[in-house]
Amino acid sequence: MAATGRVEARVDLETLHDVAQQIRVDGIRASSKAGSGHPTSSMSAADLITVLAARHLRYDFAHPELSTNDHLIFSKGHASPLLYALYKAVGAITDTELMTYRTLGSRLEGHPTPAIPWVDVATGSLGQGLPIGVGVALAGKYLDHLPYRVWVLCGDSELAEGSCWEVFDKAAHYGLDNLTVIVDVNRLGQRGETEFGWNLEAYRRRVEAFGCRALVIDGHNLEEIDAAYVDAAETGGRPTVILARTIKGKGFSEIENLNGWHGKTLPPDMEARAIAELGGERDLTIRVRPPEGKAPAAPGSRVPSEVTLPTYALGDKVATRKAYGDALVAVGNRPEIVALDGEVGNSTYAEEFAAAHPDRFFEMFIAEMQMVSAAVGLQVRGYVPFASTFAAFTSRAYDFVRMAAISQANLRLCGSHAGCEIGADGPSQMALEDLAAMRAVQGSTVLYPSDAVSAAKLVAEMADRPGISYIRTTRGAYPVIYDNSEDFPIGGAKVLHRGEPGQAAPPVIYANGEEFPVGGATPARGDDGDRVAIVAAGVTVHHALAAAERLAAEGIRARVIDCYSLKPIAVEVLAEAARDCGNTLVVVEDHYPEGGLGGAVMEALAGGEHPPRILHLAVRDLPGSGTSAEVMAAAGIDTEAIVRAARHAAQTFQGGQ
Amino acid sequence: MAATGRVEARVDLETLHDVAQQIRVDGIRASSKAGSGHPTSSMSAADLITVLAARHLRYDFAHPELSTNDHLIFSKGHASPLLYALYKAVGAITDTELMTYRTLGSRLEGHPTPAIPWVDVATGSLGQGLPIGVGVALAGKYLDHLPYRVWVLCGDSELAEGSCWEVFDKAAHYGLDNLTVIVDVNRLGQRGETEFGWNLEAYRRRVEAFGCRALVIDGHNLEEIDAAYVDAAETGGRPTVILARTIKGKGFSEIENLNGWHGKTLPPDMEARAIAELGGERDLTIRVRPPEGKAPAAPGSRVPSEVTLPTYALGDKVATRKAYGDALVAVGNRPEIVALDGEVGNSTYAEEFAAAHPDRFFEMFIAEMQMVSAAVGLQVRGYVPFASTFAAFTSRAYDFVRMAAISQANLRLCGSHAGCEIGADGPSQMALEDLAAMRAVQGSTVLYPSDAVSAAKLVAEMADRPGISYIRTTRGAYPVIYDNSEDFPIGGAKVLHRGEPGQAAPPVIYANGEEFPVGGATPARGDDGDRVAIVAAGVTVHHALAAAERLAAEGIRARVIDCYSLKPIAVEVLAEAARDCGNTLVVVEDHYPEGGLGGAVMEALAGGEHPPRILHLAVRDLPGSGTSAEVMAAAGIDTEAIVRAARHAAQTFQGGQ
Repeated sequence: MAATGRVEARVDLETLHDVAQQIRVDGIRASSKAGSGHPTSSMSAADLITVLAARHLRYDFAHPELSTNDHLIFSKGHASPLLYALYKAVGAITDTELMTYRTLGSRLEGHPTPAIPWVDVATGSLGQGLPIGVGVALAGKYLDHLPYRVWVLCGDSELAEGSCWEVFDKAAHYGLDNLTVIVDVNRLGQRGETEFGWNLEAYRRRVEAFGCRALVIDGHNLEEIDAAYVDAAETGGRPTVILARTIKGKGFSEIENLNGWHGKTLPPDMEARAIAELGGERDLTIRVRPPEGKAPAAPGSRVPSEVTLPTYALGDKVATRKAYGDALVAVGNRPEIVALDGEVGNSTYAEEFAAAHPDRFFEMFIAEMQMVSAAVGLQVRGYVPFASTFAAFTSRAYDFVRMAAISQANLRLCGSHAGCEIGADGPSQMALEDLAAMRAVQGSTVLYPSDAVSAAKLVAEMADRPGISYIRTTRGAYPVIYDNSEDFPIGGAKVLHRGEPGQAAPPVIYANGEEFPVGGATPARGDDGDRVAIVAAGVTVHHALAAAERLAAEGIRARVIDCYSLKPIAVEVLAEAARDCGNTLVVVEDHYPEGGLGGAVMEALAGGEHPPRILHLAVRDLPGSGTSAEVMAAAGIDTEAIVRAARHAAQTFQGGQ
Repeated sequence: MAATGRVEARVDLETLHDVAQQIRVDGIRASSKAGSGHPTSSMSAADLITVLAARHLRYDFAHPELSTNDHLIFSKGHASPLLYALYKAVGAITDTELMTYRTLGSRLEGHPTPAIPWVDVATGSLGQGLPIGVGVALAGKYLDHLPYRVWVLCGDSELAEGSCWEVFDKAAHYGLDNLTVIVDVNRLGQRGETEFGWNLEAYRRRVEAFGCRALVIDGHNLEEIDAAYVDAAETGGRPTVILARTIKGKGFSEIENLNGWHGKTLPPDMEARAIAELGGERDLTIRVRPPEGKAPAAPGSRVPSEVTLPTYALGDKVATRKAYGDALVAVGNRPEIVALDGEVGNSTYAEEFAAAHPDRFFEMFIAEMQMVSAAVGLQVRGYVPFASTFAAFTSRAYDFVRMAAISQANLRLCGSHAGCEIGADGPSQMALEDLAAMRAVQGSTVLYPSDAVSAAKLVAEMADRPGISYIRTTRGAYPVIYDNSEDFPIGGAKVLHRGEPGQAAPPVIYANGEEFPVGGATPARGDDGDRVAIVAAGVTVHHALAAAERLAAEGIRARVIDCYSLKPIAVEVLAEAARDCGNTLVVVEDHYPEGGLGGAVMEALAGGEHPPRILHLAVRDLPGSGTSAEVMAAAGIDTEAIVRAARHAAQTFQGGQ
């Protein structure tokens, strides 16, 4: 294969060989100093990355925010010694900083994270950097219309992940010729040979069958590497996958191609011999060419946009999933908003956005992992992605959501058809663990509106919410209960029936060694107010309201709290309700008992001096099919169940008078 | 393609055509009656399934427990009208029962579940029945050595899921010629055309590149279908994938191949016309041939087995992950025990099992979805699978674990390297949400041992535990704190430092409308006992013990509770501790604050009359890299943090005297 085309041979290949050796040495030094890391997995790809950086990558390390910069993603995040040694070689960090690898407070963590300004996303869970690269490439080709390229370094073991094949499929489907995948086929996984070893033809057949261009090269032949990058850049209409045959531990003959050296650092004597064999320590610098051309501003800052949210008539029956679609269309007037769906847009109502803003909608078919990853990639470029599917199927991408949190990504997820409320379709389609899972994501926001007005308002709130936010929507249509003028700030709650509060006296929540006053009122006897407080969210709000009506008929005044924001949660509203209502709360949710609304309420209040008693109604057994009403009744989370629990609470309360 | 070989033409194809039409009619009738369901997705595959059942499937519907039975898995679970209409056609259910489809209490749920004796696993989350089929086929080929076949019906949309490509890879790798995949390529997904429509060659190229045999047929030509099944049965060494071109809604010309009819039932007038066009209602019965040959007993009942668990010396430093491996080898003396790992067996220590029992170990490489699915498939055949990977990466298979619960599968999972305790590798490798996620799985068991003795005992407990159990193990080596004679029943906890209890008086927990006495002691002033109770699990037990030592030096007597079983949890032990120690508990966990140990403790006690105050130490910010000690200190979950919290609790307690 001949090197042709636009290559500028600004650094000769002999020098590059020395730079690659330096990078190997530095990777060894950094990991030996740290006492952990993956030097051998870095050595196999050193030539690939050196040639890329010196001759093909267009990146301004002084200005990582430039929209025209290329994107380099290490999907094999454990090759961090290679990445960080490269940062030294391009002059971005000092040798001193390199030697802080994996120490507390250093941005050079065990696996790359965006604590480093040149890292787009956290990697380290294999098979994720690649699908995120698809998202960045989608932005480049379809939204930014900029010539930046996306380079993703993968390991060979990693190709066992199904997520990678979602990538090759979608990358070909969308014709992502701005994406180049570099597979470091070093034959050895963590515990032995990979499934295919050096059978590069097996990989080639698969990659080509998926519609990508495959190039098989010797990953230590600098000329072949160089030519492959040229070839990739010149190939139009589809992504290129460079399958590079490499040697794990390349450059230190004692451990080259030897099993048992994955994730191991070299003991001092071996380290010395390795550095000597690799030509000793060097301090070479290569210049990475910055991108050419004008760099447009970030998408969010381009056009001032006006959003007019949909409105709904009180009492009309509208599903919150419908309101999600309506609001997404409205919010979509902002040009940075993009939407993705997993081939269920007619159920989630993302199809409304697809119809209104077809150029900013990406159909990901039934590939939830790729859907979430593409969203993460799109937000790398400043877009504001909303990704939707059935709430049950967000679980398919849970590892990707977990990692997105580590990437500090700004990601909006919508899960529709949540809970046993769906009735007939049965438990496989019922999300009954999604609130627990999403709440446990670091820094997440978890929302669960009860009506169309609040759903639409919360979609607008999500658009400006940093971090990962999740909105849970309901299949069935329920009455609009809020006026269109109501606000629904994240972290708030609505008190729908309410008695007279007592006097103020701030309670205190204890968390990790500190006490935080949370404001609110003192415990009131409540004689002139509510006897019982019912905390609900989403569909159970409607049942709680119905229960309050029935309780009123029995002379029991009930306060209903629409806890539409599960995380952050309205601690004060809950604490006040507990104090006003005999230090007891009835909590009702369409979710398993663990970690959902009940868990959120308990976690919010358990640090207080006298945590309330929680009468907790949740889905405790595996539901079957039936009508929505039947299944919710069977689960003990319907109006009748709430009335029973509230009566119990009110009796306790009266007993305490 | 000619029909040759072992086919017994016991039912002529003309009759089979009528049976297929009956099945279409019955699917329409059942879904129309239910008012929901997927008749058109059933009609496309009716010919495929009718020919299979009448001529190729070997199954005794009167004896679904027979080890020699074939396995028929509807990976496209939404084609339940087809499956249930087939059950009627084979005489397994009556027409009356068929008409109970999707009604409360009927076993004929919206998507198939093992509530039906002939259903192996629940489906309805696409791309799961297929990888589970791999597990059943692994059992047949490598463990049972029985000639049963595994037939999996897939949709075409479903092939967008990466999990399917993990399947084709692993099925070919393991040479699963007993597996036949039937892809119903009806071109139309839920919301329009699939990515490939009727481009069957695109599927063929991919399937063949992955090492499977592909057959492209007309899915409505009964002869071609028949011949394909013969061909599949006669193909040795690899699985066959039948790519059948079909028509959605086949048989009712008004909606054949028409978009907009996914998951929709026919209105009465259309239903009548459809039934007429399909030849009216029929009551034909086909006989499915039972399997031949002697059916051996289930694996668990074959050989009485003796298990001698490993023992450890008090004070020796042993990682719980090492104890997992040791115990797995020991438990592995029982011939029904099998193990799987995701190419990290040298980290999880599953490699010890692989070395000791190589014939019952399955390396699934880095394909966690396939790993969990294969485990589910293996337990279908009565094996007792343990599947392990890093705890962080169990999240990759969360949807599969969720569905396994609906399958009521008996599945054991091990997640190693849990928590920020791992230190240097950074947050991508730290599971900090796994306890929340696993606790929220219906009917699950969640265990987190602190030392090698308890870890080994709990592995043995898991082997006999029905449902889904999860054990979380730690990277680092910590002292053995228990004598080898200690028992660790699931649902228990160990009280490590303990004062004098007060008198007995059962408290009460309220859940879903009922009160449950939980036993235990009355609130004691504790003057002669412990001042503070620290609830820990796993690695934090060691920090809690160290904290108790330091507190003792300050004159504060601390009770330490090793809450090794998070679900079920030892409510009595926790309630007693709260009563003895000023109604306050210090809970410390290496997990995010949502839904983990703290959540479990709160949920256990919040229903009591006076729930305790919880001083909750958890990982609240995103950790970075560092040493284990540094990262745990930074997170506020180490010895020092516990001492501070316990002091606070003790002060509160003394203040109350």
